[in-house]
Amino acid sequence: MTQLEMARRGELSPEMAQVARQENVSPELVMQGVAEGTIVIPANPVHKGLAACGIGRGLKTKVNANIGTSSDYGSLTTELEKLKVAIGAGADAVMDLSTGGDIPAMRRAIIAASPVAIGTVPVYQAAISAIRSQGAIVRMTVDELFAAIEEQAQDGVDFITVHCGTTQAAVNRLTEQKRTADVVSRGGAFLIAWMLHNQRENPLYEHYDRLLEIARRYDVTLSLGDGLRPGCLADATDRAQIEELLTIGELVTRARKAGVQAMVEGPGHVPLNQIEANVHLQKSVCQGAPFYVLGPLVTDVAAGYDHITGAIGGALAAWAGADFLCYVTPAEHLGLPDAYDVREGVIASRIAAHAGDIAKGIKDAAGWDLKVSLARKKLDWAEQARLSLDPQLAERVHRKHASAGEACSMCGEYCAMELMEKTLGSRLPKC
Amino acid sequence: MTQLEMARRGELSPEMAQVARQENVSPELVMQGVAEGTIVIPANPVHKGLAACGIGRGLKTKVNANIGTSSDYGSLTTELEKLKVAIGAGADAVMDLSTGGDIPAMRRAIIAASPVAIGTVPVYQAAISAIRSQGAIVRMTVDELFAAIEEQAQDGVDFITVHCGTTQAAVNRLTEQKRTADVVSRGGAFLIAWMLHNQRENPLYEHYDRLLEIARRYDVTLSLGDGLRPGCLADATDRAQIEELLTIGELVTRARKAGVQAMVEGPGHVPLNQIEANVHLQKSVCQGAPFYVLGPLVTDVAAGYDHITGAIGGALAAWAGADFLCYVTPAEHLGLPDAYDVREGVIASRIAAHAGDIAKGIKDAAGWDLKVSLARKKLDWAEQARLSLDPQLAERVHRKHASAGEACSMCGEYCAMELMEKTLGSRLPKC
Repeated sequence: MTQLEMARRGELSPEMAQVARQENVSPELVMQGVAEGTIVIPANPVHKGLAACGIGRGLKTKVNANIGTSSDYGSLTTELEKLKVAIGAGADAVMDLSTGGDIPAMRRAIIAASPVAIGTVPVYQAAISAIRSQGAIVRMTVDELFAAIEEQAQDGVDFITVHCGTTQAAVNRLTEQKRTADVVSRGGAFLIAWMLHNQRENPLYEHYDRLLEIARRYDVTLSLGDGLRPGCLADATDRAQIEELLTIGELVTRARKAGVQAMVEGPGHVPLNQIEANVHLQKSVCQGAPFYVLGPLVTDVAAGYDHITGAIGGALAAWAGADFLCYVTPAEHLGLPDAYDVREGVIASRIAAHAGDIAKGIKDAAGWDLKVSLARKKLDWAEQARLSLDPQLAERVHRKHASAGEACSMCGEYCAMELMEKTLGSRLPKC
Repeated sequence: MTQLEMARRGELSPEMAQVARQENVSPELVMQGVAEGTIVIPANPVHKGLAACGIGRGLKTKVNANIGTSSDYGSLTTELEKLKVAIGAGADAVMDLSTGGDIPAMRRAIIAASPVAIGTVPVYQAAISAIRSQGAIVRMTVDELFAAIEEQAQDGVDFITVHCGTTQAAVNRLTEQKRTADVVSRGGAFLIAWMLHNQRENPLYEHYDRLLEIARRYDVTLSLGDGLRPGCLADATDRAQIEELLTIGELVTRARKAGVQAMVEGPGHVPLNQIEANVHLQKSVCQGAPFYVLGPLVTDVAAGYDHITGAIGGALAAWAGADFLCYVTPAEHLGLPDAYDVREGVIASRIAAHAGDIAKGIKDAAGWDLKVSLARKKLDWAEQARLSLDPQLAERVHRKHASAGEACSMCGEYCAMELMEKTLGSRLPKC
């Protein structure tokens, strides 16, 4: 039975109980959310040692880190190191997007080493296998695609990105309109190339029931991917993107009916003033399914700093109701991230998630800030660092320029807080 | 005559003409904005070699970098290096906040070396001089304070932060309510200590006409500082902050009547969901005066990454109508920034400013993104780097992991854009 099926029957699974403890909410809230499909708990029973994590309405906004090799770079060693760094920095989930080397071996090693949920994009393996063995993506058979999906489910993958909404109708919308960056989703591009060459419908859409059957059997959460997500601001919120979203909404309904957990992927590149609309639209047409956004990036001009552009968009999206932020690293648009980039990406997304959680009133979110602020007011540097998002860094930066006094080197002997405590301290009521 | 007086007479100054060229807007738009007080052009005629820059409604959002020594760290050498780095990274203005060493010498050297507008906080010099010569801030005389202001105006400072709104009434609001972090403004703290000890009104408020007279004579733009700005999320948008803002609104009106350019400083630490309200409130009670915000920081927990928390808040503030973003560096809350921090801070704020400009529809803003996206689509790496916010970094990161093909090492031979161009290229209308 899937988490969804259990929740519907009113059975509190150990995973739901764990999520409730972690979030400091009632088990009933979690169970009800899972039953309604507004919360997913990606937890494949085959994945041993998983600490289950809930994603969705009423819970803290979660952060995903993408790792994995490309044909140019990466090995089992580098990717296991990135996994460690991502988890150390606080990622709630990790996707293995390997497209180079021994893809199955990479995935199995990552699952075995990971206490957090692992996601994949099975079409990568199927398509690359077709290229390697038959010279072209377009020769991939439908059975090969589903075999890759089932193999990954058997390996213990907790959630899979499946671009089921990238239908012929959506591709037609794309070809009917002008786009600047066309298609930037790798999985979407593989499927569209296959569809156009074979003049057939997207197999993940045509055989969606077959996909649901596998997903239900292994309780793999579907992450309904947006193969037509915009790849630049100029393409944001266009007809192709929204056509695909409408289909995804229908597929969410079908997944729920089949007892399969489903979340929905979203953009991408979105100007600040379109983020809220994107989130509200997804929530409406996908009946409150958890929304998993990539960034979103609020400008195209800052390659090398896209963890920052993604944090701006992610904070706004989280506030508006997005539940799961896929990080963007400083390497985005330039190359495959390494361990340094992974760390920076996770931290930036965690800042965004937390800022969003404060604004949307998630339980306990602002309490963390209050504790830090009280330590700051006391000039208690050890406590401030301990409570920080990144204690080691906070301590290192604080020590960079020693201060002669109790304050930091920014104000030295003229610290406003110190001065106020001396002058006004006794007159002020304390929080 | 000040820029404001000239604009009111319908005289187009060389500075207004330069701003219009830079912004690609009509000279009339700039002149009208200056005349109404919704645009300021901080340009002290004594500051030779200044490239005038406009701040306010209808113009691109600008970025300020704070530099300057503290009693713990910094010298003429380090601060001139920071000035260079700030300007190189694209800062539109720089404030010299020195509180250590020879403060006047530092300021003069910085003004002489700077093509961008320079701001200061004259009360620092006056207060520290009183501490050095008489052992306590509270012994500073009103004449000494105004002498420091006039000296700085004579030196060519383009704008000065003056905490004129930190009145006894506002301090009473503060003592009537609970605050977590009390006062975190250095200038505010100096003045409040002085006011409480001497049981007198804030001299910058009591003798505001004297201040206006100096400001008018040298065309120094007043930056009406918020001595009671919140120092943590828990204190955001409280009665003390807003009481001070109401007074500042009145002082804006008086400045305009006197022919003096004025902008208004704002927070600080503000949760995402209060940023828009803060901007709209300032615009309303200050009659559209340019709004100069510090960050704002959207969480207190990310010391070491406050350039990112500030970029999130800054983007939202800019979108809502803030005109001028004071950067926050990775060293914030931990120590005085060094050249590395200055660079990171300026870049993060420029991202925020640009993201905000796209959303508020500033002329030409989104055009930059479109150019980058077209180069990205063509896999033209040299052009992408050239057009980037930070070309050197973009190139360095791209080269970190070489790719065997035309794409980058993220996707290697499976680049979605390359694949789509091959598959779909001829069928798609181009932008």
